[in-house]
Amino acid sequence: MLVVQKYGGSSVADAERIFNVAGRIAECYDQGNDVVVVLSAQGDTTDDLIAKAAEIDPNASKREMDMLLSTGEQQSVALMAMALNKMGYAAVSLNAMQVGISTTSEYSNAKIKLISRGRIEQELERKNIVIVTGFQGINKYEDITTLGRGGSDTSAVAIAAALRADKCEIYTDVNGVYTADPRVVKDARKIDEISYSEMAELASLGAKVLHTRSVEIAQKYNVELVVRSSLTREEGTVIKGENSVEKILVSGVASDKDVARVTIEGIDDKPGKAFEVFALFDKKKISVDIIIQSIGRGGTNDISFTIEKSSLKNVIQLLEEYKEKLGAKKITFDDKIAKVSIVGAGMATHSGVASLMFEALYDAGVNIKMISTSEIKISVLIDEKDEESALIAIHDKFQLAMQSLRQN
Amino acid sequence: MLVVQKYGGSSVADAERIFNVAGRIAECYDQGNDVVVVLSAQGDTTDDLIAKAAEIDPNASKREMDMLLSTGEQQSVALMAMALNKMGYAAVSLNAMQVGISTTSEYSNAKIKLISRGRIEQELERKNIVIVTGFQGINKYEDITTLGRGGSDTSAVAIAAALRADKCEIYTDVNGVYTADPRVVKDARKIDEISYSEMAELASLGAKVLHTRSVEIAQKYNVELVVRSSLTREEGTVIKGENSVEKILVSGVASDKDVARVTIEGIDDKPGKAFEVFALFDKKKISVDIIIQSIGRGGTNDISFTIEKSSLKNVIQLLEEYKEKLGAKKITFDDKIAKVSIVGAGMATHSGVASLMFEALYDAGVNIKMISTSEIKISVLIDEKDEESALIAIHDKFQLAMQSLRQN
Repeated sequence: MLVVQKYGGSSVADAERIFNVAGRIAECYDQGNDVVVVLSAQGDTTDDLIAKAAEIDPNASKREMDMLLSTGEQQSVALMAMALNKMGYAAVSLNAMQVGISTTSEYSNAKIKLISRGRIEQELERKNIVIVTGFQGINKYEDITTLGRGGSDTSAVAIAAALRADKCEIYTDVNGVYTADPRVVKDARKIDEISYSEMAELASLGAKVLHTRSVEIAQKYNVELVVRSSLTREEGTVIKGENSVEKILVSGVASDKDVARVTIEGIDDKPGKAFEVFALFDKKKISVDIIIQSIGRGGTNDISFTIEKSSLKNVIQLLEEYKEKLGAKKITFDDKIAKVSIVGAGMATHSGVASLMFEALYDAGVNIKMISTSEIKISVLIDEKDEESALIAIHDKFQLAMQSLRQN
Repeated sequence: MLVVQKYGGSSVADAERIFNVAGRIAECYDQGNDVVVVLSAQGDTTDDLIAKAAEIDPNASKREMDMLLSTGEQQSVALMAMALNKMGYAAVSLNAMQVGISTTSEYSNAKIKLISRGRIEQELERKNIVIVTGFQGINKYEDITTLGRGGSDTSAVAIAAALRADKCEIYTDVNGVYTADPRVVKDARKIDEISYSEMAELASLGAKVLHTRSVEIAQKYNVELVVRSSLTREEGTVIKGENSVEKILVSGVASDKDVARVTIEGIDDKPGKAFEVFALFDKKKISVDIIIQSIGRGGTNDISFTIEKSSLKNVIQLLEEYKEKLGAKKITFDDKIAKVSIVGAGMATHSGVASLMFEALYDAGVNIKMISTSEIKISVLIDEKDEESALIAIHDKFQLAMQSLRQN
């Protein structure tokens, strides 16, 4: 088998942990597998480098930030190869340029376009364990790019897809994907199997165990993903195609506090114009999540939407500039909110799911500010302070912990 | 003018020093020059990375060490580009792979073979200040190599040669090249101009201000070198072709304690066989400096030679293995010695120089253990404890500080 393994920064934070991970890698190799390993930067390295740059310029160019940050992964792959060598295993470290990981041009948030198989396959033929830098790539200018938060997951899955690997194992500090955040919901249950789309929704809704884009790539190239802990021997969560996964009505509940709501109030007659704003946001790389249009007072329209908190300042500034053009009366916002969502493939065919969720929130005394639904998820915006009680109430209502709503 | 500047690790050790250097670079750019800057890793970065590797394996593979250490320079070039950007200057950082610095395959001690001009020239045309990683290159396997101690000097000179730069300025923490180490010899004088060959001899004899190989490349491609301080405005030392430099009888005195003497005693009849050992050393990349053969007791031969201290253990082990084959009686060594040398283009035509040097040592009560001479240098081996008094005595004797032996 060809196995791609990815280890996060905390798993390689010091020499002891590096040897621990090297042991896991060696075990997989000793079972007769070809092994490609993708690593993040060690522990706090990336944060330390960001702090170093901030001393020079807190708004440093993204190109130079990528040049700086990419050194973190290069250090961890070299150290891991040394550890494996020390244990008597042939191993070789490679950076993105050596592998040939081509990305889009955008710095700090590039997307992988193509991965060359040549160098990795050559090293595998020589029976080397291949250790590759995660999180980074090379753009058409031959400059170093990084993939944004959680980018090492994406690197691992993309490499697994390019190599047509049999399995891609994502090692992290939790035992797998849970029905809710186990730090908040005590009886949250580990999910054994979940489909790509459900996982993608959970990830995009705030379950931080996997990066959304990595799940999308896994789905597109049908790479079997396993999320498991590098510290225990527990079986993790398998993420694969819909058909092979048992259908569960509601597979998980997730929440996200990095969200702000903005409302454009009193757009009188040409609501179409308001949507021009979204084109502008798109150009400025501001991503908008939920959008709702409602009839406001006196026949005018209100448009509300949610964005990441970090975009709030920019968005308000842009809207104030365009207010007159939009024919809008007022711009308001709220950044003390949380988005709580339930995800499940069974939802599309069970209309009662939404009302069960709303009932849970009502029982817990949680006021709903906005609602958005799709085939496999329902999201509500609530007060930030209600986040925890909402998560617990919903999890209880659906008895996710007991699997009692599992369809037959 | 096209100017290449090189700054050492201590000059870029923290944000404040980076901005100081950025100011010097900007000044050169504002004078209308095209500027290419070569940097070492910040302060203790390289040592810290070596310590990190040692925790994993003190004898880590050189390939992986190069992969690890090369990140230090990549960090400093990114930070410098940020500082210049912050000051309003267009700057771009490049690593060895982006520039295309091809080296020999040998890891940790590679030699530069070829430098592509394409990317640097492209960035200069865009009016960017170009900041390049020193100390590193890429070999034919597309692996990262490093150039060994002082390698950033070599990078700078090689880049200057490739670009046919008008000048290559080596910025360091001293004001230039001195007639002796100013920390030892109080009245040591800064040299205004010196020829390539004299500088190369001084460098190879222990004057640490420039790396020997960098001077050799400068000579080969006739690159005008300037050594000066990044902390003061003083004019430095200009290093250029012989003809343009005033001939000085003795231009400097240098010493080196990283030296050990080994003697193969009592080789009876086939001394030629002993030299086979040196071929073996060569294969093992052990470099031998001074070699002297002398008639020993009872018609047998002794061969003495000097090596770097770090090679001593290996050399003794090798010789003990070969002792019988060599027909030698005994292997002895001495690692408590220093090599003190005087350098000067005038020496070849002034036979009295050697005797003046020996007289100075005799007056100071310093015993000479071995002597070696060339066209432009005389080296003696002495007891390590006599190093300082020898330096001062020789410097005084030649009145280097007063330039009184300057030829007309």
